[in-house]
Amino acid sequence: MELKAKLELYGSKINAALIEAMRLESTPELLKEAMRYSVKAGGKRIRPCLVLGVSEMLGGSEEMALALGCGLEMIHTYSLIHDDLPCVDNDDLRRGRPSNHKVFGEGQAVFAGDALLTYAFEYMLESALKFKNDNYLRAVLEIAKRAGASGMVAGQSLDLEAEKTGISDEAALYRIHRHKTADMLTAAVLAGAYTAQPNGEQIKALREYSEKIGLLFQITDDILDAQGDEKLMGKTLGKDKTSSKLTFVSLYGIDKAKAIAETTAEEAEALLGVFGYNTDFLRDMIHYIKDRNN
Amino acid sequence: MELKAKLELYGSKINAALIEAMRLESTPELLKEAMRYSVKAGGKRIRPCLVLGVSEMLGGSEEMALALGCGLEMIHTYSLIHDDLPCVDNDDLRRGRPSNHKVFGEGQAVFAGDALLTYAFEYMLESALKFKNDNYLRAVLEIAKRAGASGMVAGQSLDLEAEKTGISDEAALYRIHRHKTADMLTAAVLAGAYTAQPNGEQIKALREYSEKIGLLFQITDDILDAQGDEKLMGKTLGKDKTSSKLTFVSLYGIDKAKAIAETTAEEAEALLGVFGYNTDFLRDMIHYIKDRNN
Repeated sequence: MELKAKLELYGSKINAALIEAMRLESTPELLKEAMRYSVKAGGKRIRPCLVLGVSEMLGGSEEMALALGCGLEMIHTYSLIHDDLPCVDNDDLRRGRPSNHKVFGEGQAVFAGDALLTYAFEYMLESALKFKNDNYLRAVLEIAKRAGASGMVAGQSLDLEAEKTGISDEAALYRIHRHKTADMLTAAVLAGAYTAQPNGEQIKALREYSEKIGLLFQITDDILDAQGDEKLMGKTLGKDKTSSKLTFVSLYGIDKAKAIAETTAEEAEALLGVFGYNTDFLRDMIHYIKDRNN
Repeated sequence: MELKAKLELYGSKINAALIEAMRLESTPELLKEAMRYSVKAGGKRIRPCLVLGVSEMLGGSEEMALALGCGLEMIHTYSLIHDDLPCVDNDDLRRGRPSNHKVFGEGQAVFAGDALLTYAFEYMLESALKFKNDNYLRAVLEIAKRAGASGMVAGQSLDLEAEKTGISDEAALYRIHRHKTADMLTAAVLAGAYTAQPNGEQIKALREYSEKIGLLFQITDDILDAQGDEKLMGKTLGKDKTSSKLTFVSLYGIDKAKAIAETTAEEAEALLGVFGYNTDFLRDMIHYIKDRNN
């Protein structure tokens, strides 16, 4: 199946599971509405698609993959709500719609995020008692680790700190994005793997693959931002002049950033060599991430 | 053992486990410092003490009780950090020290809370793979449910909403506090029970007991607040005049509120009848909650 068709199929399965998950019959109206608002605003559902894709590749349980994918998407969604808050990025818009706190107020947006994060674990753990499977628990633990104090939130905190102090060097830039972007993609890929019986070599390759596509995701983001800025401002190529923030483009220039993206994509693809069978999905995802328009 | 000595013993075990848990070797400095600041500020550790006390009463695993108690305390701590934020209660002080956002800034305080909440699950789940015990998983699930969208966060959201609209009636007041206060105490008591092999009748009695002590906790809070206000303002007894907020004291007057507290305490004690053995701890906790000074 073509990647586009596959992502559509996965996306529709995930959206159906999310609608079911977000019934929240014992949740007060306002909180429920605030939680649903941001989950429904949905994006490309890249993380849960990765869970489903890796699970299918390794012959894992789709039921487990859906539970983990929904949990990951709830966590991703809460992180966007908190990132948009006035005390963090102060973004009024998210995916073209008013951000959560613009609609529900800042306090309720904090709670909508808290509730989504907690519910992600409630939701994943309810299934744990049904599945009775250690690898499923390993997947939930991997998600908690990659989402938290040594993962995504670490990246958010470092990023916010850097707003004040500036990003000191190349290593600091990589560190922020490894946590802020790559960790949740890694959680998705490894969670997908744990729905099957992966061996150590496979886990290692998938972890390294995820780090590559995480880096690729961020470099592409920076390139898209820089190109967007140029279009907007009619500036010459090669410099990100709209902000003093260190990005891969401001660090390397746009041509070198593109070259690094290409190399990273090749390295990610090479890592798939350990799988003796169909790796179309993961290979196509590399190009999907690199060649996307937003 | 006297309750005071017992709480001191439990408290020291919990603090030791929390220090170990909060090493956070892969967490960036600033985030780690912000997380530790509020965990160390510690209060009476009532919730983890309940976990340990119920576990001991039922002959459960102390190792499980400590893991669950630490997780609960992390969740309780994050909820205080987010409650203190300017967009929620706007409290500059917590337990006599500057609140988290006064020290680390609002954005970092949001992330410190998020990281503590996520880490609570990471920490509890790491042990799950070691214990391999369904009842332990039930305890973690109970904590997630009671902490989240149909538990504590529901109460926080309703409470914030009521700041704007006012609390409409008695039922609404009970609903807010059942979620905001009682749910986490219930989580603690039931988590303690699940470290052993409780039967259905015991779980039912403990759940009802927890709801009673949750109500008792809140009524006592309102009485203490009203008495504190009187002292401060030299007002006559019986009315909470410092705010238009509906409390148990403003609803019933202080004398009736005290009478309800007494009745609730008796009902809680009666529920302990199903246990054929030592219920000193849970009985003493009722009086500890009712007769406390802060």
